[in-house]
Amino acid sequence: MGEEVDVTVLAGGIGAARFLRGLLAELAERDPAARVTVIGNTADDITLFGLRVCPDLDTVMYTLGGGVHEGQGWGRAGETFAVQDELAAYGMQPQWFGLGDRDVATHIVRTQMMAAGYPLSAVTEALCTRWQPGVRLLPMTDERVETHVVVEDDEGRRAVHFQEWWIRLRAAVPARSIVPIGIEDARPAPGVLDAIASADVVLLPPSNPVVSIGTILAVPGIRDALAATPAPVVGVSPIIGGAPVRGMADACLAAIGVETSAAAVGRLYTGLLDGWLVDDADAGVALDGVVVRARPLLMRDPAATRAIAAAALDLAADIVAARG
Amino acid sequence: MGEEVDVTVLAGGIGAARFLRGLLAELAERDPAARVTVIGNTADDITLFGLRVCPDLDTVMYTLGGGVHEGQGWGRAGETFAVQDELAAYGMQPQWFGLGDRDVATHIVRTQMMAAGYPLSAVTEALCTRWQPGVRLLPMTDERVETHVVVEDDEGRRAVHFQEWWIRLRAAVPARSIVPIGIEDARPAPGVLDAIASADVVLLPPSNPVVSIGTILAVPGIRDALAATPAPVVGVSPIIGGAPVRGMADACLAAIGVETSAAAVGRLYTGLLDGWLVDDADAGVALDGVVVRARPLLMRDPAATRAIAAAALDLAADIVAARG
Repeated sequence: MGEEVDVTVLAGGIGAARFLRGLLAELAERDPAARVTVIGNTADDITLFGLRVCPDLDTVMYTLGGGVHEGQGWGRAGETFAVQDELAAYGMQPQWFGLGDRDVATHIVRTQMMAAGYPLSAVTEALCTRWQPGVRLLPMTDERVETHVVVEDDEGRRAVHFQEWWIRLRAAVPARSIVPIGIEDARPAPGVLDAIASADVVLLPPSNPVVSIGTILAVPGIRDALAATPAPVVGVSPIIGGAPVRGMADACLAAIGVETSAAAVGRLYTGLLDGWLVDDADAGVALDGVVVRARPLLMRDPAATRAIAAAALDLAADIVAARG
Repeated sequence: MGEEVDVTVLAGGIGAARFLRGLLAELAERDPAARVTVIGNTADDITLFGLRVCPDLDTVMYTLGGGVHEGQGWGRAGETFAVQDELAAYGMQPQWFGLGDRDVATHIVRTQMMAAGYPLSAVTEALCTRWQPGVRLLPMTDERVETHVVVEDDEGRRAVHFQEWWIRLRAAVPARSIVPIGIEDARPAPGVLDAIASADVVLLPPSNPVVSIGTILAVPGIRDALAATPAPVVGVSPIIGGAPVRGMADACLAAIGVETSAAAVGRLYTGLLDGWLVDDADAGVALDGVVVRARPLLMRDPAATRAIAAAALDLAADIVAARG
């Protein structure tokens, strides 16, 4: 890689945000002129109490901007919950979504800008002028896409918003299907396709392969752009030895009939990946036409996370070099 | 007065709320079956950050419901300001309006219900199911009315929202005129006219005669209903010895060319009042066709406030008795 490297990253929430922090730390030393564009999942978005909430975009923004609650990996540090407590006192539902006071302000700004006619991409850019995340953060689309999950339990068969399944039901009720509603009519947000086409490297961090990376890839045009980009596309497995690194990706994979393994997730990205970073526990994995490399993948601290990002960049560089 | 007395009160904010607390304390002993309907001013309402704020209705609701910040007389006890601080960090304006976190929840509930199509009267009733203020609280109208003030200063001649004049400019910039925008098209909210027509007593607490009581009276139909009601209408002067009891009523009176005196304010209510309670300092005041009675009017503590409310009820009873 030369100077002014353009790195494009597809991102879900917590896992991607931490990976990105490691990536920025690595690039700061390796290539200070590098530019990182993040294409964020917006299918987790939800409207609560009339406020538009974008959990994944905010997690990336807060994490890279230094405002995140480090312990939980999402939401704001030093958060309070007066608004939510009061909404509960008024009998308002839902109460299962943790909506902090500081976070509410972000949603108020977003909701007001959207009501004024600004697309989500412009709103996200405006919010980032405060947070200065050190990346260009793009929503995957400006259209409204919301993942719903069909479940069946004592309350009957029904579709619930992904957030309700994930948070209230803790993904413990099996998902019959997972449907990103509105995805067929979604168009990539301005800059998304170009960020993939003109990138020097494209990275898929260890995000949920179904509801994060999967929905980004499901936006018409994005999968094709990834398949066509001349840049090496390197993914980091979110599965280590048959279990998700964090979160409940196994419940999502089960819903789409895919086993929870580094190999199976790699195959989900068939035709897109040039390199696949797996954990030492999955050292035997092989994928047709993909350079698979094994190393420790637990993002247990900033140094370990940065080393994973470095390994992904190294793998991409090796792939480019091998092409001659 | 007999049993099941219906008392109807026209109310602004802090002054009215305190008077109402005294009134309820007095009625609890004098006539526990009495029913109080409050017709609240809504011309101070403002939309901030996409949230609909009704300062006077909320002040009455919080005060009678036990949630008010006693020291300042408005807003919530134990309030925090995380949302507002964050909005400021995003560069959002205005910052001159004190918007607490607990208070924000009230406005979120209101805004969401209004967006769902509920009129303000239904929203207010819903909010009161939590607060149980002990009165039936009605907005003067379900239509949107907003008082604007024409001012001229270094920033030029312009109209500003009443709240901006009152809070940011501290009513220190002379008002060229005060205009309740939308008042011509406003209709009394459901129950308002009947509450006046069927009342046994109608009281005007010591609220601002221009921007509180004045705007309520300016809703088409309300002044006529007051003039026509068989109930005695008794007002409590908000002016003591040429100065407002609290607030900046003098700046409002100056704008409409009325002197700041108990007599002049009483004359504003010509044709409506049957009784006018003034302070001992204004003992000489006389109004045609109105029984004027002087007594201490400073609401310096709950006992003094209750005694003023008792005096207003006594004056109403005496007026009825005098009619034979």
